[in-house]
Amino acid sequence: MDQKQLEKLLRSIQKGELTVQEGVQKLKTLPFEDIGEAMIDHHRPLRKGFPEVIFGQGKEADQVIRIMERMVEAHEDILVTRIDEEKAKAVLQRFPQASYNQRARTITLRLSEAAGQSQGIILVITAGTSDIPVAEEAAVTARIMGHSVETLYDVGVSGVHRLLNHRERLMEANVLIVVAGMEGALPSVVGGLVARPVIAVPTSVGYGTSFGGLAPLLAMLNSCASNVAVVNIDNGFGAGYIASLINR
Amino acid sequence: MDQKQLEKLLRSIQKGELTVQEGVQKLKTLPFEDIGEAMIDHHRPLRKGFPEVIFGQGKEADQVIRIMERMVEAHEDILVTRIDEEKAKAVLQRFPQASYNQRARTITLRLSEAAGQSQGIILVITAGTSDIPVAEEAAVTARIMGHSVETLYDVGVSGVHRLLNHRERLMEANVLIVVAGMEGALPSVVGGLVARPVIAVPTSVGYGTSFGGLAPLLAMLNSCASNVAVVNIDNGFGAGYIASLINR
Amino acid sequence: MDQKQLEKLLRSIQKGELTVQEGVQKLKTLPFEDIGEAMIDHHRPLRKGFPEVIFGQGKEADQVIRIMERMVEAHEDILVTRIDEEKAKAVLQRFPQASYNQRARTITLRLSEAAGQSQGIILVITAGTSDIPVAEEAAVTARIMGHSVETLYDVGVSGVHRLLNHRERLMEANVLIVVAGMEGALPSVVGGLVARPVIAVPTSVGYGTSFGGLAPLLAMLNSCASNVAVVNIDNGFGAGYIASLINR
Amino acid sequence: MDQKQLEKLLRSIQKGELTVQEGVQKLKTLPFEDIGEAMIDHHRPLRKGFPEVIFGQGKEADQVIRIMERMVEAHEDILVTRIDEEKAKAVLQRFPQASYNQRARTITLRLSEAAGQSQGIILVITAGTSDIPVAEEAAVTARIMGHSVETLYDVGVSGVHRLLNHRERLMEANVLIVVAGMEGALPSVVGGLVARPVIAVPTSVGYGTSFGGLAPLLAMLNSCASNVAVVNIDNGFGAGYIASLINR
Amino acid sequence: MDQKQLEKLLRSIQKGELTVQEGVQKLKTLPFEDIGEAMIDHHRPLRKGFPEVIFGQGKEADQVIRIMERMVEAHEDILVTRIDEEKAKAVLQRFPQASYNQRARTITLRLSEAAGQSQGIILVITAGTSDIPVAEEAAVTARIMGHSVETLYDVGVSGVHRLLNHRERLMEANVLIVVAGMEGALPSVVGGLVARPVIAVPTSVGYGTSFGGLAPLLAMLNSCASNVAVVNIDNGFGAGYIASLINR
Amino acid sequence: MDQKQLEKLLRSIQKGELTVQEGVQKLKTLPFEDIGEAMIDHHRPLRKGFPEVIFGQGKEADQVIRIMERMVEAHEDILVTRIDEEKAKAVLQRFPQASYNQRARTITLRLSEAAGQSQGIILVITAGTSDIPVAEEAAVTARIMGHSVETLYDVGVSGVHRLLNHRERLMEANVLIVVAGMEGALPSVVGGLVARPVIAVPTSVGYGTSFGGLAPLLAMLNSCASNVAVVNIDNGFGAGYIASLINR
Amino acid sequence: MDQKQLEKLLRSIQKGELTVQEGVQKLKTLPFEDIGEAMIDHHRPLRKGFPEVIFGQGKEADQVIRIMERMVEAHEDILVTRIDEEKAKAVLQRFPQASYNQRARTITLRLSEAAGQSQGIILVITAGTSDIPVAEEAAVTARIMGHSVETLYDVGVSGVHRLLNHRERLMEANVLIVVAGMEGALPSVVGGLVARPVIAVPTSVGYGTSFGGLAPLLAMLNSCASNVAVVNIDNGFGAGYIASLINR
Amino acid sequence: MDQKQLEKLLRSIQKGELTVQEGVQKLKTLPFEDIGEAMIDHHRPLRKGFPEVIFGQGKEADQVIRIMERMVEAHEDILVTRIDEEKAKAVLQRFPQASYNQRARTITLRLSEAAGQSQGIILVITAGTSDIPVAEEAAVTARIMGHSVETLYDVGVSGVHRLLNHRERLMEANVLIVVAGMEGALPSVVGGLVARPVIAVPTSVGYGTSFGGLAPLLAMLNSCASNVAVVNIDNGFGAGYIASLINR
Repeated sequence: MDQKQLEKLLRSIQKGELTVQEGVQKLKTLPFEDIGEAMIDHHRPLRKGFPEVIFGQGKEADQVIRIMERMVEAHEDILVTRIDEEKAKAVLQRFPQASYNQRARTITLRLSEAAGQSQGIILVITAGTSDIPVAEEAAVTARIMGHSVETLYDVGVSGVHRLLNHRERLMEANVLIVVAGMEGALPSVVGGLVARPVIAVPTSVGYGTSFGGLAPLLAMLNSCASNVAVVNIDNGFGAGYIASLINR
Repeated sequence: MDQKQLEKLLRSIQKGELTVQEGVQKLKTLPFEDIGEAMIDHHRPLRKGFPEVIFGQGKEADQVIRIMERMVEAHEDILVTRIDEEKAKAVLQRFPQASYNQRARTITLRLSEAAGQSQGIILVITAGTSDIPVAEEAAVTARIMGHSVETLYDVGVSGVHRLLNHRERLMEANVLIVVAGMEGALPSVVGGLVARPVIAVPTSVGYGTSFGGLAPLLAMLNSCASNVAVVNIDNGFGAGYIASLINR
Repeated sequence: MDQKQLEKLLRSIQKGELTVQEGVQKLKTLPFEDIGEAMIDHHRPLRKGFPEVIFGQGKEADQVIRIMERMVEAHEDILVTRIDEEKAKAVLQRFPQASYNQRARTITLRLSEAAGQSQGIILVITAGTSDIPVAEEAAVTARIMGHSVETLYDVGVSGVHRLLNHRERLMEANVLIVVAGMEGALPSVVGGLVARPVIAVPTSVGYGTSFGGLAPLLAMLNSCASNVAVVNIDNGFGAGYIASLINR
Repeated sequence: MDQKQLEKLLRSIQKGELTVQEGVQKLKTLPFEDIGEAMIDHHRPLRKGFPEVIFGQGKEADQVIRIMERMVEAHEDILVTRIDEEKAKAVLQRFPQASYNQRARTITLRLSEAAGQSQGIILVITAGTSDIPVAEEAAVTARIMGHSVETLYDVGVSGVHRLLNHRERLMEANVLIVVAGMEGALPSVVGGLVARPVIAVPTSVGYGTSFGGLAPLLAMLNSCASNVAVVNIDNGFGAGYIASLINR
Repeated sequence: MDQKQLEKLLRSIQKGELTVQEGVQKLKTLPFEDIGEAMIDHHRPLRKGFPEVIFGQGKEADQVIRIMERMVEAHEDILVTRIDEEKAKAVLQRFPQASYNQRARTITLRLSEAAGQSQGIILVITAGTSDIPVAEEAAVTARIMGHSVETLYDVGVSGVHRLLNHRERLMEANVLIVVAGMEGALPSVVGGLVARPVIAVPTSVGYGTSFGGLAPLLAMLNSCASNVAVVNIDNGFGAGYIASLINR
Repeated sequence: MDQKQLEKLLRSIQKGELTVQEGVQKLKTLPFEDIGEAMIDHHRPLRKGFPEVIFGQGKEADQVIRIMERMVEAHEDILVTRIDEEKAKAVLQRFPQASYNQRARTITLRLSEAAGQSQGIILVITAGTSDIPVAEEAAVTARIMGHSVETLYDVGVSGVHRLLNHRERLMEANVLIVVAGMEGALPSVVGGLVARPVIAVPTSVGYGTSFGGLAPLLAMLNSCASNVAVVNIDNGFGAGYIASLINR
Repeated sequence: MDQKQLEKLLRSIQKGELTVQEGVQKLKTLPFEDIGEAMIDHHRPLRKGFPEVIFGQGKEADQVIRIMERMVEAHEDILVTRIDEEKAKAVLQRFPQASYNQRARTITLRLSEAAGQSQGIILVITAGTSDIPVAEEAAVTARIMGHSVETLYDVGVSGVHRLLNHRERLMEANVLIVVAGMEGALPSVVGGLVARPVIAVPTSVGYGTSFGGLAPLLAMLNSCASNVAVVNIDNGFGAGYIASLINR
Repeated sequence: MDQKQLEKLLRSIQKGELTVQEGVQKLKTLPFEDIGEAMIDHHRPLRKGFPEVIFGQGKEADQVIRIMERMVEAHEDILVTRIDEEKAKAVLQRFPQASYNQRARTITLRLSEAAGQSQGIILVITAGTSDIPVAEEAAVTARIMGHSVETLYDVGVSGVHRLLNHRERLMEANVLIVVAGMEGALPSVVGGLVARPVIAVPTSVGYGTSFGGLAPLLAMLNSCASNVAVVNIDNGFGAGYIASLINR
């Protein structure tokens, strides 16, 4: 039942074609679709400026292209995550104006009018160089959502002076995303240096007792710094997304 | 080396009592304490209005009292977490102006001038009634940090209409803390309804395959809602703390 | 917004006190409570004959009594699970007509008119004698929900002839609940003998590598019999509940 | 000892060639094969209309074909699960009347006279699009077993209105199969909306802390909805099988 | 159907009161109970000399006494395991001729005529002194089953010469039971020294990463000695039982 | 120090070339090699008839051939395990008299004079057809060690009559090896039917919550049958080896 | 066979009472005890100055006293670990010259002449105040073994300046023991600051996903600093012991 | 701020161009880089003779070459770990003077003047032949760091005499690295024979319940020998590195 149908029903009551009791009965079983759609309508403005996100893993290039075509028609910003280079090539042939980030394995395409950038800075930090792809996914996500992103890579805790050299940049950031594999200690150290929220992303970088990222995940959940919250292993996109919401 | 010592050193160079080379040598080994303290000085204003937090678990009432005495002298707001009723009684005999929250198992004592409340609302939600103690710890933490907190308890996903009835309250909140044991599904549902950050707190409420909160923890880390970040099992304090930072 | 409020709104449109557009607007934001309540109303008849269930663990006798008082007023059947003997005594002093099952640790109180019993039989089977409390919880649950329940205890797989002796009883049952700790093999053997659904309940009976019921849980999930579905460790109530739904 | 041998033995007693004591002795050690076969005979009618199931994984096309040939001779319905496209092609060359479902990775061949369809509907629901292959395996299984199956895909909990829009379809179903990866929350929400049994199927869809489906499995076992039972990760076939038994 | 009923049936055929076909039909559905009981009869001689075993854990002294009374009537040897001292006292008041082993936490009562002892020796070895209770349970079990048992305690691998000093005793044993907590390495070393079967028993002795005996369990399952098989953590009884079967 | 050197030393004492004190000193530091070799000498007869075993996994065909060449020179029986077909072909070109078992993935070559076969039978049982390769490895191992092996495949617990049909064969065996994946229930059922030792072998056959064989492993360790001991997942060789020792 | 017996044997050869062949035979079967004891003799000087260690947990005060009495007779230094205050009181009544460390839960008694202290310093560091008992156990162990021990407590990574203030002390230490619970990140940071070996001790301090110390254990094993090795959870004694060996 | 800038600043104060207060202000915010670099300068001599280490895994040959070129310019010793043969060939074409160790999968290139070798011996021991690659990585690491390394391979505990034959070599070593997969028992046995530190390295050699090296890891952490510390699974490099620090 869309708005027109609802108007028609109320007009029938207005005109006396439908009794109040009949109207009550019909409205009590009001299909959720309509409310649902209404809910979406109300949500849209709230969500404005946010891209729809296509999880590329397990999708064929064709599928990605079809979804993108519908979004382009709707003038929506586009973010495709976890798409490998080969599929990306096929997608970019169809959408030459889109751009592929090889390290982040993302395709982005900005179609909305450029919103004024948010004032706060999102700082994305990694412990090692192997954590950079996950960090880049976070950075790309936050940028397409309209945020200023800076990066600080390879400042892991076994050489803590590398991090401390950048203390001022840490303290200027409004939200920090800290990406680390191995022992996952960096979010605790960063969290202790700043007074802003830290989104910690464990990565599957490591071997043996890393157990695919379990070691840094547990470390981050047990952080002695109180300003640290954690997302799934390798979930750069999620970190970029929630950091963007915080930064708004 | 505090500021006075540093001034003295530089004056010795100014007066020629110390050569430049000698000064360079002394400064190169500049004790970190001073920089450290300086760092703390810079941090203070940033952290202003935030209480020092005493983790009560494993501490004797005497220890808690001694720490509180030093903090009261410094006119700092006080939050004691995980303190059981018996110890709390002993503490309150010494500090009658402090108050004990039995469900949250916290002692609070506000000594700073009341900061203007933040405008955004932190909404603390629980799936069940057994999750309330953890939720109260989060609420108490955010309140002592100067934030407006509202609560919405017992709206778990097996009766999703209970949650949907409060959809407007969800959408008005600036940050949401969602506390859930058992299957830990509530943060995903809440996350899908709002466009603000959701801090998810798994609880050890449950039995059997709950494995002490592992089940809801994994569920929250795997949330299909992108605006969910997670803290440690039963860590209401951490959720309240980071939510407060986000809400500032 | 309850039915009266809805009637009032529609009458305002009928009378012309409210324009159709105003009505559409009000109904579009129709509070979910009402639909929620309506949903409950629609659900009630479907759920008729089913007791509200009070999870006794962690609740004081007083709390249980207060909830029971409200339910007795509503003439609802009552099932309290996981309530120990001491608390049960306090509850039974208040409700002498209720009865306590020591092995199942349940209180039941039937207030609805006795529904005609379902025709199918729910057969509750255990591997060992230590599994009986969980089995009894399942049996009590199914009985208060109006079902015929039979039991067959201590027929574990290390003496498979004990089970085979009762092959006919197995084949007559409409639904089977199989409760087992240790290696959790009984549901597979039972499942292979019958052509009806088997609800498997792992128990925490065992030691060492039982890991609190993990061993039988995994065994049941990996059952080579295709007619086996599993509930949480020690969850006799859940097994009795879903078996009752199947048996309807 | 087959029926002929048994007849011969009894005739020997009838004729007096064998004493009663000798007959008792022989029958006491009656080989189980015969009873076994008898048992199968008694089981057949009970199982009537159910296909024999061939687990295709790890079998060569040749092996599948040989088994199918024997079943075709016996005019049995055939279901092959977990068979990839390449092998399926080889099988279909031999049995052109069989059909391959690419998403479900199943081959089916109906040879029995069509039984009257069961009246109840089995509704198969997925949280995401990646869960569809497992859901299709469940659907194909239930259909070959003679049941009416409907599907409702991609209605995960992070957009709960998508599910609520179909509330009526949920409530009309007699049995529900809910397939979900990631946080595995959908069975709890569905279970809260309906008064019928829900068979939950965790899938290995996800990454990181999904741990190959462990996360949704634990969520489903800890469901706060009492009408949920669980099968193995990715076990669409098992879900379809037990749902069919429930629906009979 | 017991023997009398079977005789009656066969006599009816003998007398012509029952046709062969009718007899076949009746015998085909021969209740399993009878065969079951017959099976027990056939089993008894095989099992002769073996005690029935009462798992004392979780049983009240009264329950143990009642079971023992029935067994004493049947002149069966009795072994009660995992029974603490307090309960044991109550049991021994009723059966003064029984004896309690405090370290093994077992009660034994020999009622059968003493079978000739087996010739082979079962050697029970422990790594540390804390493993002795589990070892004693094994030793008591094997002794009540009629076997010669020797013990060799506190010869763990961190002082391998302690073990090597007893090399000859190791090589004389027919079966070896090796009980170890912590790193669980002893079965591998013993297994490498002897050419007989080694039954390894992990114990829950240890702390931290012992994880309740998981560490020695995994070590024993991964033993590089090919003559090692493993039983459950702390399962001294099982080790003694299977060692006795091997030694027969 | 070999025997000749020892003789020389003692002769020097005999001749007075060496004082007793000097001899004591030399012998106190007697190199272990010699004792070691002596120990090996003593062990040989005990181990007689047992093949040296080559673990083929991770070894090149060349390496296997070189080891075999040395063993052939020593007229030792040869067993190579876990060797794939391709490498086996290369090995058999060099040793045409050796034979490859494709299912067991073993090469065997008997060079010792045929020892009289042991009288007891080792019965190798599997739950499913996928468990057969592991079972064959056990069978090949026991046969090369000189034992009579029988096999009984595909008698899993979901069709327990298939197993019971072979009850007599079970009871005639002296040692039983039971190989099972999935829920790993078969050793418990077999163990309950026989009075001989059962060596249980969990296999990695299964998916999802099988967790690579963890599910059947835990089931077997928690077996309610007391005559079951367990070896590593997929360790058919170990089972065949220890069963052979038991059967001697 | 002790030295006297060996002399006697060699004298018999010298005197011709025993042939060389007979001597060879006797010596070839030389009991390991003797070599074992000899080995101990050789070991003693190496181990000199090291206390025998009594693991107090699970031992009665009486047992501890009896062992100590034998050691006092041998003038050996004594270290008792994991002994609670009550038992310690009983022990100290018997040995008033011994001393009890309440935080470390150790009893020490020095009886050997004081060895010259080692020159290097062992620095014991903790992340939090709750880790101090484990650290004290390490410190007490190293001191009774004759080493200079310094401590630096409560310098966890969430306030990294606290640690950096003591950089010089870190760099002066010869061996460092780093004790940490929660996220276990401190060893990595310390390891990055120094060029000496770091022994990391995870503690069970924490809750929820600490899983009894698993989180810091995994973090330490995955340390990105290459100079970190790890001991068991809460194993302060082991850390102190190996650090002492390194410091010699 | 490097030394020149610092001199310039102090000269400005000396000359009166800068007031003391201004100097204090500038130095208080002294960039960490400078202190960092200074720290590195101070560290260099301490670390002298130690190679920079390139973790080859996941790096392209080109990347490795570029890093090596910078190091060669700085006349630093080079160690590349985890580099497969193909990439190594490319690297060696560019640096013909470097050498590749196929078993260790390392490239080394010594450019520093040869430091006098350390006097103590590092002994690297393996349980099996499959553990050798990890052992070689440890040996190569210690050698490039300037230490005398000896190796003792394939002396696992199931043939403990193989190890005991080399008792003297064990006792002569200053540090021991013990590499073992499967049950990981070797470090305990070695630790019991020597009075020096043992660095234990679990390997992923094994199958089934080895769980990728978890089994030997747990065994080593639970070692009953007090002189054992553990590094990550397969971490030969880390073991070689820390052993070298101990041996200095």
